[in-house]
This record gives sequence, C-alpha cells and structure tokens, in this order.
Amino acid sequence: MDNGTERFRILKLSEKGTSCIEDVVAREFPLTIILNNQELTTLLCSPTNLRYLATGFLFSEGLLRGKDEIRKIIVDDRRGVVRVEADSDEELARDALGRRFITSGCGRGTSFYSAVDVQGQAKVESLLEISRLEVLALVNEFQRRSQIYRATGGVHSAALCDTRNIIVFSEDIGRHNAIDKIFGECIANDIATNDHIIVTSGRVSSEILLKVARRNVPVIVSKSAPTDLGLKLAADLGVTVVGFVRGKRMNVYTHDWRITRDGE
Amino acid sequence: MDNGTERFRILKLSEKGTSCIEDVVAREFPLTIILNNQELTTLLCSPTNLRYLATGFLFSEGLLRGKDEIRKIIVDDRRGVVRVEADSDEELARDALGRRFITSGCGRGTSFYSAVDVQGQAKVESLLEISRLEVLALVNEFQRRSQIYRATGGVHSAALCDTRNIIVFSEDIGRHNAIDKIFGECIANDIATNDHIIVTSGRVSSEILLKVARRNVPVIVSKSAPTDLGLKLAADLGVTVVGFVRGKRMNVYTHDWRITRDGE
Repeated sequence: MDNGTERFRILKLSEKGTSCIEDVVAREFPLTIILNNQELTTLLCSPTNLRYLATGFLFSEGLLRGKDEIRKIIVDDRRGVVRVEADSDEELARDALGRRFITSGCGRGTSFYSAVDVQGQAKVESLLEISRLEVLALVNEFQRRSQIYRATGGVHSAALCDTRNIIVFSEDIGRHNAIDKIFGECIANDIATNDHIIVTSGRVSSEILLKVARRNVPVIVSKSAPTDLGLKLAADLGVTVVGFVRGKRMNVYTHDWRITRDGE
Repeated sequence: MDNGTERFRILKLSEKGTSCIEDVVAREFPLTIILNNQELTTLLCSPTNLRYLATGFLFSEGLLRGKDEIRKIIVDDRRGVVRVEADSDEELARDALGRRFITSGCGRGTSFYSAVDVQGQAKVESLLEISRLEVLALVNEFQRRSQIYRATGGVHSAALCDTRNIIVFSEDIGRHNAIDKIFGECIANDIATNDHIIVTSGRVSSEILLKVARRNVPVIVSKSAPTDLGLKLAADLGVTVVGFVRGKRMNVYTHDWRITRDGE
C-alpha cells in the first residue's frame, strides 16, 4: 500500500532566489465504495487503510450496524474500488440512498444532518474524566505522530485514545475520512470506543460530532475550532468538546465536567 | 444578514488557571438549494452571501452556464432555502443529478471528478504574469481581510484579485463554498474572472482546481498545500498553482512561467 505521498519537481521562490527542488505532495485518490453490488459513493481520500475507511464510512452512514453483518470485503487498490458484501438491512440502505439523493452534494453533502439521524441518536452517558495535563500530553504525542502532515502539510490526522495513550492513529486528506478510518479499524479489530477520546487536527463540525456520538465517544479534542452547530449537537448528545489546544492552553466548550485539574 | 458568528460561554484552561469567558464561534448553517422546484442539495455553510453561494454552486456544478439563464432567485435565510428559477438545460440537470446520485457522498462527494467533466474542460490559455512580490502583497492583504477567521479560527477565505488588488472577497466554513461565493458574486455582477487570480486559505484539491479552471482563472495562490490530483489537473488544464505562501517564501508547482521576478 502506498504511503499517501508523491514526489513533484517544483520551483521554490524566496527573497534569496529561485531553486528547483523535489517536493513531497499528499496524494488524492478516488475510492468507490460498492455495497452488495450497489455503487454508493466515490470518496476522495489518501490511499491508505482503504478497508478501514470503507468500513468506517458504512457505519457512519448507518448502512451497517454490527461487525457480524459483514460477509466479505474486497479491496482493489489499483482500480480504487472496495466491494463490501453484507447482511445489511435493505430497507435501511434504500432509505440512506434516498436521503443522500435528496440532500447530498458535491463535496459537501449533509446526509448526516437530517433530523431523523439526530433524533435517533442516543446521548453519550460515559462518566469518563480526563485531566488538563493528560489532554496536553495526548495532543503532544498526536502531533509527533502526524507524519504525512509534516512531510506535505496537506493532510488531517485523527486518533482514538484512552486518557494516557494513542490506541489507533490515522491520516487522510479529508478530516471526515481520517475519523472514519479510525472507527473502521476499531470495528474490524474489536477495539472499544466508548469511554475513549478522539483527537483530531480538523474542525469539529456537526458531521464530525455525529460520527463521534454514533460510536459513543464522550470526548473530542481538536487543535482547531468548532462550529456552532457542532457545539449545539455536542451539548444535546452529551459530548465534551475541547478546541484550540495550542501550547498549554485549551477551550472547553461543552460538558466541561469531564476535563479536570487533578494534581495541579 | 448574520455575520457568520455566534457567542458561546466556554471554559478557558491554561497553566495559570480556569476562566469562564464568552467566545465567538463560526456558524454552520444548512442551506438547501432548489432549482426549478427540484431539491438539489443541502450545503453546510456560513450564513452570508447565500445568493452568491447558490449561483456559484449551480455554475460550478455545470447546471447553469450563463447569467441570462437565471429568471429569479429567492433567498429565504430564515428557513435556509434558496429557490432558483432558470432556463436550464433539463437534460443537463438530469445528467448532473444522475451523476451525483451515483458518485457523491456524505460530505465528500466527487461529482466534480468524473472523467466527462475533465475531458470537457478547455485549457486555460491566459498569458497573465504576476511577480513574486505582487503575490506576497496580495496574500498580505488577503490575511488582513480575513475577519471571521481572526475572530473564530474556524473559516476559510477566498478572493478574486488582479495583480495588484483584491476585487471580491468571501469567507465560509467550507473552502468549496468560499470559492463558489466568489464566482457567484462575479457572475451576478458581471465581474470578469479570466486573466485574474484566486487566493485561498484552503488546500488546492482536484475539486477546487476544476472550479477555478471552469471560470477560466489562470493562477491559484494558496497559503496551504496542494494534492497530487490537483496538481495533475492544473498541469493538464493550464493553471498555475502557487502553494505554501508563508512569510516571503512560496512554492510554484505548475506552469511556473506566470510567476516572474520583475524588478528584483
């Protein structure tokens, strides 16, 4: 499997002059997901962990609900196709497709933000707490791990963590994909997500928040900003949102009782 | 019209202590676009310039081709709906919808990246040149103008420029939307885009590159990174990509003859 980058010859211009160098650029790969012979979508993604991406996507979409529904996953990474055979609920799949047909679009769909989705979503009830210093330590480690970003400046990272360690880590040009890869890996390898923490390099928007709530994750930590809709959903669905973790500072937007100052 | 932000009470944690403050967060607004009574899509966007966003979106999608096709645009910014009545090519619209049904998905569709779209796209033939110092001056001014970003850290900016000045400027939580707002404003107000420059805060991916080539823009300048697919399209379609403009440095990835060192 490719490492997600490609080399290009470019011109570097500065006040000191012009030089022709070889630079590393993030790859952008069209991946078509086919569920039970039905073409669902083509994602633009980083070509790594395609199996996990497809799995996470199908769960995030509500098209699969349990690992035991999956009969077979065939990844063709040359043609950019993942075929999933599953005992999925046909009616569910038709509903999801119908909804997407109506509401999704062109790089910025919103099938996630239908009222039905939100109403059906149970509140995250976890009693997990994590201290400010533990959050800082996780984000430090998270930044150390972000390899493609350091090389290309062009990708997002995401991680599933407990209060002390990164358990699953992924990178992708799309912030949605990075999180779907995490959840796909968790589902494939029976890694629990409840009582855990998601760290992301990307914005916490409504779609990201719904993905996280669906996997019953009580805390999401981001180096960047949330949106108002993300925060409203977080407040309703019992998710703690920590944003702008930079240096030793952070903002806690919702359900702040989960972030403690133990031992300080 | 709202200015795209909302106030939240949050906890700010640092090594010095915890304070409860009021902070400004970027709004995320679902906007449904209806063309000739057919619901096309719901975008998640910043609730500013909705008319321009809808117009730019319809042109980027290839659903409209000329301003004179638009009969009426009704913006309902309370319910989040834009209705467009237009003499659009019914077959074209059906094709686009069919394509979207097959290929788009959930926050990350790729209707833009169908082989048909790319093959049908003419090469940008502009002889425009811009000097390194002019690029730096434009990016400086661009950063000065990015108001919502400075307040919230949560939005993208885009601008249409000539070699000396910013002509149209926009902000949106989505980098695609910010560029569609620019092009929608240009179409509405008969502002030429050929022989001009787009500056963006976001990544230059294949979808962004296609939008820019469709409006015949020869140069795109970004503060961040391109993807390999964006660069391959740029090379094929005659677009100059300048990335990582930071401090006094920049990378020129494609068609570098347009970036000069005049007067240095």
